[in-house]
Amino acid sequence: MNWPKHGSNPQFLYRALNQEYPSNFIDFSTNINPLGMPEEIRNELIIGIDELEHYPDSTGIELKNEIAKKENIATEGVLLGNGAAEIITIIGRWLQGEQVLICQPTFSEYEASCLQNQCLVEYISLDELETPSNVFERFHSVRAIFLCNPNNPTGEVLEKDIILNLLREAKKTSTYVIIDEAFYDFLEDEHTYSIYLHEYSNLIILRSLTKMYAIAGLRLGYALMEGNLQEKLSAFLPHWNVNSLALRTGRIALTLDEFTEETRKHILKEKKRLFYYFDQNGYQYSLSRVNYYLLRDPSMDEQTELLNYLTAQGIVPRHTFNFPGLNGRWLRFAIKTESENNRLMEVLQTWKDRR
Amino acid sequence: MNWPKHGSNPQFLYRALNQEYPSNFIDFSTNINPLGMPEEIRNELIIGIDELEHYPDSTGIELKNEIAKKENIATEGVLLGNGAAEIITIIGRWLQGEQVLICQPTFSEYEASCLQNQCLVEYISLDELETPSNVFERFHSVRAIFLCNPNNPTGEVLEKDIILNLLREAKKTSTYVIIDEAFYDFLEDEHTYSIYLHEYSNLIILRSLTKMYAIAGLRLGYALMEGNLQEKLSAFLPHWNVNSLALRTGRIALTLDEFTEETRKHILKEKKRLFYYFDQNGYQYSLSRVNYYLLRDPSMDEQTELLNYLTAQGIVPRHTFNFPGLNGRWLRFAIKTESENNRLMEVLQTWKDRR
Repeated sequence: MNWPKHGSNPQFLYRALNQEYPSNFIDFSTNINPLGMPEEIRNELIIGIDELEHYPDSTGIELKNEIAKKENIATEGVLLGNGAAEIITIIGRWLQGEQVLICQPTFSEYEASCLQNQCLVEYISLDELETPSNVFERFHSVRAIFLCNPNNPTGEVLEKDIILNLLREAKKTSTYVIIDEAFYDFLEDEHTYSIYLHEYSNLIILRSLTKMYAIAGLRLGYALMEGNLQEKLSAFLPHWNVNSLALRTGRIALTLDEFTEETRKHILKEKKRLFYYFDQNGYQYSLSRVNYYLLRDPSMDEQTELLNYLTAQGIVPRHTFNFPGLNGRWLRFAIKTESENNRLMEVLQTWKDRR
Repeated sequence: MNWPKHGSNPQFLYRALNQEYPSNFIDFSTNINPLGMPEEIRNELIIGIDELEHYPDSTGIELKNEIAKKENIATEGVLLGNGAAEIITIIGRWLQGEQVLICQPTFSEYEASCLQNQCLVEYISLDELETPSNVFERFHSVRAIFLCNPNNPTGEVLEKDIILNLLREAKKTSTYVIIDEAFYDFLEDEHTYSIYLHEYSNLIILRSLTKMYAIAGLRLGYALMEGNLQEKLSAFLPHWNVNSLALRTGRIALTLDEFTEETRKHILKEKKRLFYYFDQNGYQYSLSRVNYYLLRDPSMDEQTELLNYLTAQGIVPRHTFNFPGLNGRWLRFAIKTESENNRLMEVLQTWKDRR
């Protein structure tokens, strides 16, 4: 089966399943804010159209300054990307040929980028970090470790002690710890490891601005790190890599605290309803702290039959065949609007009733 | 002097010259269509805002299909980039450690990308291509040769025989010929070497959609080549590298033949007026066939004094200190609107009258 590499663009999933692409469906496969793009961002986009005749500021200095101020670090430590995906690409380029560790199951682009650059990629399960001495022993030969927190696709977070312990041990061997915080702003109790950047020059934080602000089509991500490293990584980026609409809306996005608060409230409320329903009806789910979760019908090992049933009903989950450790035994769903989540529960009910 | 690497973003030039950034200026340093963004593109951008909540199609298949149809090649031979700059970046990545030739003076990103990837970069002057046997001898050890045609910054074109001869000789040693046609659609007699892609699997054509359609801030370029090579190069690109507004407007741009025709007429008319003035007033200029040209006051070697005078009058040329072979002895100007070009001639007149 030729499974699509990522969620979104459901046409690829329907093709893989050999099902007709329906005119109506709800896309649960992409983890975008269900409240949609805020009005403030839409207004900036309209204003920004007139600017498109000019090249973007290749330094992105204004957006960098705003991010630096918010994170309380030096502007030199901020790197802007054409989506976080571009930053992952150049991190792989920078790590070319080195040994790296990836904590699984997780977002597939870390592995893809490292393999593309002849890295020696090794894997550990997130469970192994709970008794990490075996992991730490490997740090002598490991240049970097990738960690997604909150994790994609589970939505779970690691305990703070585990991460701080990891940072401390990794620092001893100059091993970089790359924490992808693409979904940190969806956390019920929003928190970040960027406050440890001052202490750990081996820490790199990845962020995305396209999920919370529903501008996935526009591409905008950033990374936080020590200034010299930022300069090294930037040298691998194309000139003018961030478009001017992304630069403009990014600055506004950083100010929308009310919107992010409202989003987190919505997610929490919907998650409670969904998880209550799953509990009552014998569905298993991951203990997600963010805007997506894993789900399975425990009466089956692989969930392909359920996946097929759902897509035929216009419900599009994310398959998990390319998440090592999951291998299709779960499906991932975004938390969406109240009515969309209701529709999901309705269809899950008909699935259950049929069996 | 810390000269900016590129035109556009005049704030960098004013900073380098230690001049105050004026509230009014005319930017001749960036080679964007002086007619501005066509209405059809603007309309698509407004429609496209609603799409931004979704991820772009990472395959860009619809735009690729349209380009392939127009160029009469297979879709597999089309590569899309976040600006042509991104394509130059991954070409450098692909050529890592190889020996390359760059025809000078030319756009600086070829060299930057190759050096970033430990290539052994050697240079030839465009004149050397006229008696090229010495160049051809070097092809045994050369993996690729970069050629900008029409050339940036001169606006001149190479004779067809020279390029075909080069392609033929390069094919014998499997040396790639990379022809950057970023400005080919501004040519008075529009012509391209893409028609030779069927014959030469060692040919790579680079294109830009941001100059003709005045969407430099949006980032969109593409390359044409043999299909297997396209697949190899694509593997170096970030996922979702082209934003969805660029994908949407690119498709429309390809249909705007009347607009490109009108643009070429405007450029030709203005160029005639400008070159007549330069002839009458003793300014030297390059025999440009496109929408920008080199200019100099032959009474001086370096043109920094003239550059300073112009910027102080709100006329922003492109310096040429980072074009080897030019080294500040010329200034580059875009051809702009009638009134903007008039203003340039007025200021050049006051420069002349003062001396």
